[in-house]
Amino acid sequence: MLNFGRSFDVKVEKKSAEKMDATFEIMKDEMNSDEVGYYKLPANSKEIVNRVKNLKLVNFSQIVIIGIGGSSLGIKAVDQVLRAYSPNVKEILYLENSDPVSISMTLQKIKKEEALFFVISKSGATIETTSIFKTVLDYFEIDLFSTDTKRIFAITDEHSSLSHFAKNHNIEEFNIPANVGGRFSVLSAVGIVPLMIAGYDMPLVLKGAQDFAKSFFDENEYHLLEKAYYLSENSEKTPINVLFSYADGLENFTKWYVQLWAESLGKVNKHSKHVGLTPVGLIGSVDQHSFLQLIIEGTRDKTVTFIKVNDFENALSVPDITLFGIEKTDFINTQTFNTLINAQCDATMQSLIDSKVSTDIITLDKISSENIGALIMYYELLTSAVGSMTDINTYDQPGVELGKQILYKNLKKH
Amino acid sequence: MLNFGRSFDVKVEKKSAEKMDATFEIMKDEMNSDEVGYYKLPANSKEIVNRVKNLKLVNFSQIVIIGIGGSSLGIKAVDQVLRAYSPNVKEILYLENSDPVSISMTLQKIKKEEALFFVISKSGATIETTSIFKTVLDYFEIDLFSTDTKRIFAITDEHSSLSHFAKNHNIEEFNIPANVGGRFSVLSAVGIVPLMIAGYDMPLVLKGAQDFAKSFFDENEYHLLEKAYYLSENSEKTPINVLFSYADGLENFTKWYVQLWAESLGKVNKHSKHVGLTPVGLIGSVDQHSFLQLIIEGTRDKTVTFIKVNDFENALSVPDITLFGIEKTDFINTQTFNTLINAQCDATMQSLIDSKVSTDIITLDKISSENIGALIMYYELLTSAVGSMTDINTYDQPGVELGKQILYKNLKKH
Repeated sequence: MLNFGRSFDVKVEKKSAEKMDATFEIMKDEMNSDEVGYYKLPANSKEIVNRVKNLKLVNFSQIVIIGIGGSSLGIKAVDQVLRAYSPNVKEILYLENSDPVSISMTLQKIKKEEALFFVISKSGATIETTSIFKTVLDYFEIDLFSTDTKRIFAITDEHSSLSHFAKNHNIEEFNIPANVGGRFSVLSAVGIVPLMIAGYDMPLVLKGAQDFAKSFFDENEYHLLEKAYYLSENSEKTPINVLFSYADGLENFTKWYVQLWAESLGKVNKHSKHVGLTPVGLIGSVDQHSFLQLIIEGTRDKTVTFIKVNDFENALSVPDITLFGIEKTDFINTQTFNTLINAQCDATMQSLIDSKVSTDIITLDKISSENIGALIMYYELLTSAVGSMTDINTYDQPGVELGKQILYKNLKKH
Repeated sequence: MLNFGRSFDVKVEKKSAEKMDATFEIMKDEMNSDEVGYYKLPANSKEIVNRVKNLKLVNFSQIVIIGIGGSSLGIKAVDQVLRAYSPNVKEILYLENSDPVSISMTLQKIKKEEALFFVISKSGATIETTSIFKTVLDYFEIDLFSTDTKRIFAITDEHSSLSHFAKNHNIEEFNIPANVGGRFSVLSAVGIVPLMIAGYDMPLVLKGAQDFAKSFFDENEYHLLEKAYYLSENSEKTPINVLFSYADGLENFTKWYVQLWAESLGKVNKHSKHVGLTPVGLIGSVDQHSFLQLIIEGTRDKTVTFIKVNDFENALSVPDITLFGIEKTDFINTQTFNTLINAQCDATMQSLIDSKVSTDIITLDKISSENIGALIMYYELLTSAVGSMTDINTYDQPGVELGKQILYKNLKKH
């Protein structure tokens, strides 16, 4: 169960209602025409789920993800938040960055005869991913013409270079639909296959996402359109959107949100204007000791969304101990940390409301596969709605091409 | 060795020169009058370093930090970046957040007879820290009237509640100078004691910081004042400052920077105006696949500082392997990942310059204790300079008090 609350008002007058209705129709069209594919990923996931169920896997205790950006962030988000609640899930290791130090450290943790390697790249030729994959082949002396290939999985677009490679070596291959961008792909094979093999209940994650999408398109989540309207109407006054999650396990989720939001909403719009909402991911209570001062007293250019978990299903409490000299903190004795962290979330939100900062809050009754699926779908739908309202193409990323061209030119000169 | 380069011009006319000179004098006064204490921390560190050298420690293989915000972020920053280069350093575990799930997971990794516990709180009564400390005492059945106290260290202000507690139980205590704020305290006992006991070469970190501070006050780092001037003059046009570090090991350093920048510079200024520069920490090349699109095509409200490591002292290279179908990435074969990640940094910076985004770059010749010390001092001095130029009190944090009051009121009602 997700609950939604907020401190800001959206006056639903004719103009705003028309804009929200138009956005809703655009999103429905994007879905029904299959122009944008993420909407239907959960509903269309049965085939992938069944394929994974029927895979004959060699022995393994480690999952190694070789991928970056949209090919790793979503997996890390789900993995981190559900891990504490999934005792029998296998270890997952990530090879993402082209940093030689972190690659070397991760390689040392991998045991070839215990590992399944997932090479994930939508285009099939991401420079970090192919370079690291070659390094893995070399380091573990993997023979591409032997049964070693049973340990390798490729997840990529149909007809991509990685797809050609996989077919050539009889490597198990899963495809990402062409109409699903990398940052919207966590509920495609990209997330389903490795997370399900690791032991997560992906059918439940997918169910949570599908139920939320259905509820939205059944016109039961009008608050989402109102929020998108508020954010887009105030995009010049409050161009920074803070996601303040009160749970350490949601740190990677906030990183996934940062990618989704930044890469989707930072665009030159249809009127040739640079527009964009800047995402900031924070973790409470830690960042009360860091970023909060800036939100309260700094330039009033931010909205803040809180995520709170009602029940962590963990009874750890502050022991009834009095420490000489520190008696003044005894008022928290015997309370659970669950109570403390949520009281901190409530107090911080109240202090922002009192300071006239626009806030909203998403409350999860607990950390569950379904709730995480719903949260993912909520943020994807919100991104689409804001993108439509700010007159941009939400689904491309032309701004990163220039850097790639310069990189290729410079490296080929070597 | 740190090198500094940039793409933006500061026209040093009479007005700007006067402002930079005035700021320099203010900072010198803050230091000489001991109004602000962090400037002299490295120079005054001999006593602490000698005390640590002469400590008689019980057997241990784990360091446990119980602290949050300024009492953990700096330690984590130094620990993470130097770890790969410090093979004999002990494991460090962190108990920071009031999240019951992460506390429970960390407690399970601690072995009482192998651990030294560092309770760190400037005020001495931080609610997360005292609550977690009590939980540790209870969980490991630590007897405060036995030799168990040899495993506990307190780092706090003189005469704080934690200080009273430590004295009462003969617990080894180190103090934070009253004129050093939490976010400026990493080079005080807060960082020195646990990091040195873990095995890091803190005297070298301190030397790097001291040398940089001396160079600044010897008027050899004018670029720092120019950058501060540029950032403060453009604080309305480009209120967001991105720190884009091309090394996974610098992720916690960017979190330390975010706290330092946000909590110091987000203030109501002397003219009662809400001002503030918003920090964003990114890691390259990972965030090229995430946030970069927003910087290039989104609203032009950002400056970007790159941190690049010339020599990772790691020879890992891309094997000379051709993969069927993926031949087009062969141009990187035989190159080191060191070359790849730095070519990515250069290409991204060039693409931002071509897109007319203001950038600068700090190049470390390598990851070393001295360089990290210098980098810490550089950012502290830059923060002071920007704070002075934007007419704020850089060193307080009044904005977080309201939330604390609400928390105490609500919790005491229970």
